[in-house]
Amino acid sequence: MKEKTIDYVLRTTWFAVQKMYNEEAAKFEATMSTAFTLLSIDPKQGTPSTALGPKMGMESTSLSRILKNLEERALIKRIPNPEDGRGVLIHLTELGLEKREDSRQRVFRFNDKVKSEIGIEKINHFYDVSETILNLINENKIF
Amino acid sequence: MKEKTIDYVLRTTWFAVQKMYNEEAAKFEATMSTAFTLLSIDPKQGTPSTALGPKMGMESTSLSRILKNLEERALIKRIPNPEDGRGVLIHLTELGLEKREDSRQRVFRFNDKVKSEIGIEKINHFYDVSETILNLINENKIF
Repeated sequence: MKEKTIDYVLRTTWFAVQKMYNEEAAKFEATMSTAFTLLSIDPKQGTPSTALGPKMGMESTSLSRILKNLEERALIKRIPNPEDGRGVLIHLTELGLEKREDSRQRVFRFNDKVKSEIGIEKINHFYDVSETILNLINENKIF
Repeated sequence: MKEKTIDYVLRTTWFAVQKMYNEEAAKFEATMSTAFTLLSIDPKQGTPSTALGPKMGMESTSLSRILKNLEERALIKRIPNPEDGRGVLIHLTELGLEKREDSRQRVFRFNDKVKSEIGIEKINHFYDVSETILNLINENKIF
């Protein structure tokens, strides 16, 4: 394969972004995964613990570990879900909200830098290609 | 974040591709990682074991596990590197070459499908965006 394939480009680009986010997160004794979890929790209503895995596309064992870590660092708290007697809502603490906002700023900074560097038309085509890939996969049109 | 961010799109698209490849590989009792490893080994000259991890962007512990699996399934063999007395070359066996070719066909099928669906101009812009991201990261221009 002399020419770079689409999957190769996706993989290397995502890995580079992940590494960059992890290095940035490490400055604050965090990881990309913990930051991503904070971003996935609704800052006002909280998020049912069972909804978080599917939302993040993450296995529940990995997620449990992250939630335990976030709870120990007092960034989240678990409260009973008023709408589901046996359910648990994950809420952000004051500190969690602060850290979530920090993470959000990092994400925006990355996105704004890329957008200003390459322009919106190519970004939109990038989105189109991703959407096409997702559609082809969801409709089982590849294999 | 109402609008989808670039990192989010990259992540979800890569995860979907990875899941698709793993499902396809499972039909042949393989995984995406083993297929990707076969594709990363030079079919003629073989590849030094120490070069494989960096080439694939993979931790050596994960890679060791995969190589052990491939060796047990008689898809690769380790031979002393004639150009490096202490080094080891990973070579594909006949069966390994066959499986590598199967994997290559799957990768091409995916790439051809996406290309024919969306057209080369947008694909090229997709590549441009990825390259811009990699450059910004490599030059430490984000954080």
